[in-house]
Amino acid sequence: MNRATAIACALLVFARAAVADEGMWTFDNFPAAAVKTQYGVSIDQAWLDRVRGAAVRLSSGCSASLVTAEGLVLTNHHCVRDCAQSLSTPTDDYVQNGFAAERRDDERLCPGMQAEILTAIGDVTPRVNMATTGKSGGDFVKARDAAIAAIEKESCAGREAQFRCQVVTLYQGGVYSLYTYRKYSDVRLVFAPELATAFFGGDPDNFNFPRYDLDFSFVRLYENNRPIASRDHLRWSAEAPKDGEPVFVVGNPGSTQRLLTADQLETVRDLSLPESLILLSELRGRLIRFSEESAEHARIADDVLFGTENTLKLYRGEFKALAEPGFVASKRRADEKLKAAVDADPKLAAAAGDPWAEIAAVQKDRRALYMSETYLESFAGRSSLFGYARALVRAAAERTKPNGERLPEFTDSRLPLLEKRLLDARPVYPELEQLELEFWLSKLRENLTADAPATRVFLGKESPESLAAKLATSKLGDAALRKMLWDGGEAAVKASDDPMVELVLATDATSRAVRKDYEARVEGPTDRALERIARARFAVYGTSVYPDATFTLRISYGKVAGWTDNGVTVAPFTYFRGLWERATGQPPFALAPKWVAAKGVVDDGTVFDLVSDNDIIGGNSGSPLIDAQARVVGAIFDGNIESLGGTFGFDPAVNRAVSVSTAAITEALRKVYGQDALVNELLKR
Amino acid sequence: MNRATAIACALLVFARAAVADEGMWTFDNFPAAAVKTQYGVSIDQAWLDRVRGAAVRLSSGCSASLVTAEGLVLTNHHCVRDCAQSLSTPTDDYVQNGFAAERRDDERLCPGMQAEILTAIGDVTPRVNMATTGKSGGDFVKARDAAIAAIEKESCAGREAQFRCQVVTLYQGGVYSLYTYRKYSDVRLVFAPELATAFFGGDPDNFNFPRYDLDFSFVRLYENNRPIASRDHLRWSAEAPKDGEPVFVVGNPGSTQRLLTADQLETVRDLSLPESLILLSELRGRLIRFSEESAEHARIADDVLFGTENTLKLYRGEFKALAEPGFVASKRRADEKLKAAVDADPKLAAAAGDPWAEIAAVQKDRRALYMSETYLESFAGRSSLFGYARALVRAAAERTKPNGERLPEFTDSRLPLLEKRLLDARPVYPELEQLELEFWLSKLRENLTADAPATRVFLGKESPESLAAKLATSKLGDAALRKMLWDGGEAAVKASDDPMVELVLATDATSRAVRKDYEARVEGPTDRALERIARARFAVYGTSVYPDATFTLRISYGKVAGWTDNGVTVAPFTYFRGLWERATGQPPFALAPKWVAAKGVVDDGTVFDLVSDNDIIGGNSGSPLIDAQARVVGAIFDGNIESLGGTFGFDPAVNRAVSVSTAAITEALRKVYGQDALVNELLKR
Repeated sequence: MNRATAIACALLVFARAAVADEGMWTFDNFPAAAVKTQYGVSIDQAWLDRVRGAAVRLSSGCSASLVTAEGLVLTNHHCVRDCAQSLSTPTDDYVQNGFAAERRDDERLCPGMQAEILTAIGDVTPRVNMATTGKSGGDFVKARDAAIAAIEKESCAGREAQFRCQVVTLYQGGVYSLYTYRKYSDVRLVFAPELATAFFGGDPDNFNFPRYDLDFSFVRLYENNRPIASRDHLRWSAEAPKDGEPVFVVGNPGSTQRLLTADQLETVRDLSLPESLILLSELRGRLIRFSEESAEHARIADDVLFGTENTLKLYRGEFKALAEPGFVASKRRADEKLKAAVDADPKLAAAAGDPWAEIAAVQKDRRALYMSETYLESFAGRSSLFGYARALVRAAAERTKPNGERLPEFTDSRLPLLEKRLLDARPVYPELEQLELEFWLSKLRENLTADAPATRVFLGKESPESLAAKLATSKLGDAALRKMLWDGGEAAVKASDDPMVELVLATDATSRAVRKDYEARVEGPTDRALERIARARFAVYGTSVYPDATFTLRISYGKVAGWTDNGVTVAPFTYFRGLWERATGQPPFALAPKWVAAKGVVDDGTVFDLVSDNDIIGGNSGSPLIDAQARVVGAIFDGNIESLGGTFGFDPAVNRAVSVSTAAITEALRKVYGQDALVNELLKR
Repeated sequence: MNRATAIACALLVFARAAVADEGMWTFDNFPAAAVKTQYGVSIDQAWLDRVRGAAVRLSSGCSASLVTAEGLVLTNHHCVRDCAQSLSTPTDDYVQNGFAAERRDDERLCPGMQAEILTAIGDVTPRVNMATTGKSGGDFVKARDAAIAAIEKESCAGREAQFRCQVVTLYQGGVYSLYTYRKYSDVRLVFAPELATAFFGGDPDNFNFPRYDLDFSFVRLYENNRPIASRDHLRWSAEAPKDGEPVFVVGNPGSTQRLLTADQLETVRDLSLPESLILLSELRGRLIRFSEESAEHARIADDVLFGTENTLKLYRGEFKALAEPGFVASKRRADEKLKAAVDADPKLAAAAGDPWAEIAAVQKDRRALYMSETYLESFAGRSSLFGYARALVRAAAERTKPNGERLPEFTDSRLPLLEKRLLDARPVYPELEQLELEFWLSKLRENLTADAPATRVFLGKESPESLAAKLATSKLGDAALRKMLWDGGEAAVKASDDPMVELVLATDATSRAVRKDYEARVEGPTDRALERIARARFAVYGTSVYPDATFTLRISYGKVAGWTDNGVTVAPFTYFRGLWERATGQPPFALAPKWVAAKGVVDDGTVFDLVSDNDIIGGNSGSPLIDAQARVVGAIFDGNIESLGGTFGFDPAVNRAVSVSTAAITEALRKVYGQDALVNELLKR
């Protein structure tokens, strides 16, 4: 059975009985019985509560876990790469050389980073549904977003300083849940290894296994300028799990599209994924050449190049899965099967209508608006300077409106994190900004055409090159200026003579109009139809279904396991000795000096990285890999190349999650990095 | 009717009766009756012979035409852009500033360029078929190529110095034709306008209309160091054709894929086109940034960046056409219709078998071998240094074999042009070479994976970056060294210590093995099956079919005509005045100084560019646009954006060919460039 067929079969059946080890389950719907049957392990509420209390979501888009009573948090190196770069200078490069705080006082604030721990889940579906009854298109979007804004505000009223309330849309709108988080906005970098060790093999090895990456780091949560006393934390295991041992991943998978209809997937395959691949490939080329121009260019472009290449590889894997012969056709058969079941039940049929046909009809507008929406809205914010300016200009306007009438990202419940991100000081690099701006504007002109009214609004008589050079002189890299504009509101923003603020002021009506149009013609009708499909799915298949990933807390179960593909078997573990065997002396296969010296010093039979068949996706980076005793045995940092199709479906035979073992981390901290204090803190009982 | 449906309908019927103005006809099968019926114009054999005798193919991949009795040839500016760059130096940039020979003696040899004029067409199908009877896979490819090599050698025996014989595979192997060309290997640049005028609007305006490009140039054919006395040439018209007037395009369309099966098109849509788009987009990004590093980098990368962007835009248009909902399904219905007709006739069915199923089965191997074939063979030759080294190493080995046993590009009939291309002196830019080499090697590693045996053969312990730096020190940019290695054969090549020659020697067995595997498992079975489909198509639909484009001489008929799409009507002409209206002062919309000065001097009501509904494709660049009196009225230089899907099907409603008018060229030569001698030569009767 080839991969596409395997995934298709999984898709056909997963709704009734979860396939072995498939699923990113919410904490209020964990399939404990299935785990008991399959692994003989009893997962009770106390176990779930304990790991949930230790599970951390980072606003940088990663997962993490509390591992000591003093607020120490384990996550990936690549989750703090941006932080390490922000703290670096031309002479102190914490990405290349690593970072180690000698004392608590040396732990450094990660700009813009917030940590969140889920404390409660509630159901608010009836209230949201009541607000949207009878509404469609843009009105539906507006009513839904207003209801969400109100719920979030009320639910955290009076405790906003410590809590964040978020309404999460699950099952494509079949369920709306209220997630309440304890939040920590003072997150400090404690330890990060050198890039050459954390990301040994670089982009060529990314998403591959066997793997030899020490992709971990530690941050610490502070409050009132002191480390927090963690209520819950996972116990640290200095031993690697065994082959076949049951393991659990607790974290925040970012986004899957397993419940989309075949027509939506076709648009992804034929339009949005190829366009994104074309776009990011050119950006990658510009960034690579930029990085080669000087050591300083390489330093300042490091994180954005890594992110671009990482996303590219993910998208290529996704495209490959969707373009596999027969894949979309299998999804269409699954759609038809559900529709047939709905049509067979008059009451269900009356409630559902034909949402599949509605979604099919929307694709034409989705294609027609794709370029405008992309280049005026979604892709426009890549430049930090533009992102700052747009947030300042829009926030100034939105904050004058009642909470329920604002764009969702400016509602009261979202403002605190936005403000932190906007006002935390961090370096902005004008040369890199100019590259990003020129690229974005050139793609805007290329894809909307030189003659499009929107292109003229942005460019006037300028070229992308000449305009980008002017905009890169913006002073918004200065946090004090941003604070002045944030505090000063509309009057201050309108009085600004900063070129980037002026650009956003001159163009924002155009961009907002496209967004509104897109909401009315694409987002609204799509979401409205998906809700009805979700309800039909519940009615036909019951509730033993997991929702698509939404960057909210999930738990997946599985076991340590290698895999066999095309007759080749891959073992589940790598060991330290493999690192020296794979090294060539040339980046990204060059060893860091400390590891050249470590040969013969560390135990080279230590389990380094390992794979398990947990169902994960981007956003799970940094998630603890947990054993049945709720001990942390690793940190998820990647999936294998086969797992990239996991966006659309899970193939238990070959999809694998990749972790760095806590055994390797412990050995490295002791023998290579001399971090005895950290090890003692980790092992303290 | 949307575009995809229109093309699909055209595909369904074109085999029986040519759709209005569709078709790239061979000169021995011109549908004169259809033209007479539609336009009331009688095209007789004398007319065809005259224009054929004036039609020129340039080995640079363009078309052209003789326009005076003294060997003057009209083509596009972009067809000599590479030549102008080769003749340039850091201080004399003939691309940016244009080139004008003041006297005959100042006309400059275009390195590597050969001009060819078709003199005879013969049918050699029976002989090729006899050679391949009963053969399959790699044996079929070998037998076919050996027969072709023998025919080409015999047919030009004794007159190789002036003639080139080429067996052309038409109708996917349904017909093999022997084309005999008079060749001219001394082609000199006479006149080229500045890039800002020839390519006004640059990449943003490329493939668009309305358009304001003076995309023409003149070269001259020499023999024995003197201009040739042209036997045939087109008369020059200084007047533009009228709206609706019948016009003909005579040139060499490069490649279409209108006769491929639906399964082949799916592989193009799902694999080869997306991969090419990803690849060229990253290269584009690297080249753009490289060009921005200095004026000299911009100069030396000019032509390769233009070529990359031009190809990218073409591929995006092709992908868009293939990904249009329903397009491939329509093609599949056309396949099924032909198959049903075949199956209904027992004799036909017995002869044909099921070639569609065979081709479907081949797609698995095609996908499996795609990356190896691309990165070890097809895409490997982008670097000039690598291309030289591979040609030298392979030619040395192949020339020791009998003619019929060589790789096709090294048979006796192909060696003269290869030798010219290899030995003509032209600049090689080490920095640009390093960029191309690093890019190719990094993609090789990325796409074959770091652990693939082939990757290790190429890289060893090097990185793409370190190896590219070493290879860029190759001295093969020196034509004298190349001549020494060419003349010295295998002994000289094997004794060379040039790093690039050494790399090719060390890796060529690996590359050749992949090529052989691809021929045996993909090319052979595919071509064998396509031959039978072609024969079935002839049997069912008769001979009123045109073959897919093959960069050989074709003629297409049509009329001057604008078009209407989505309610917007585009007029067929632009005028000089539009150039000043569109100028912004910023490249690529900045006017050349001569044209700033020309305002008020030239007649701004002169027809500048125009569109006609002739069926063209890349390779037709430079083709004369000819009126019913066989006068040249323009030079094709582009298609509109809608025409990019022309690779897979022609939509007469919106596909348009774009020409620069001879009226505009005449006015510009007189009033802007002061080229009275050229104008007099053109108008001489």
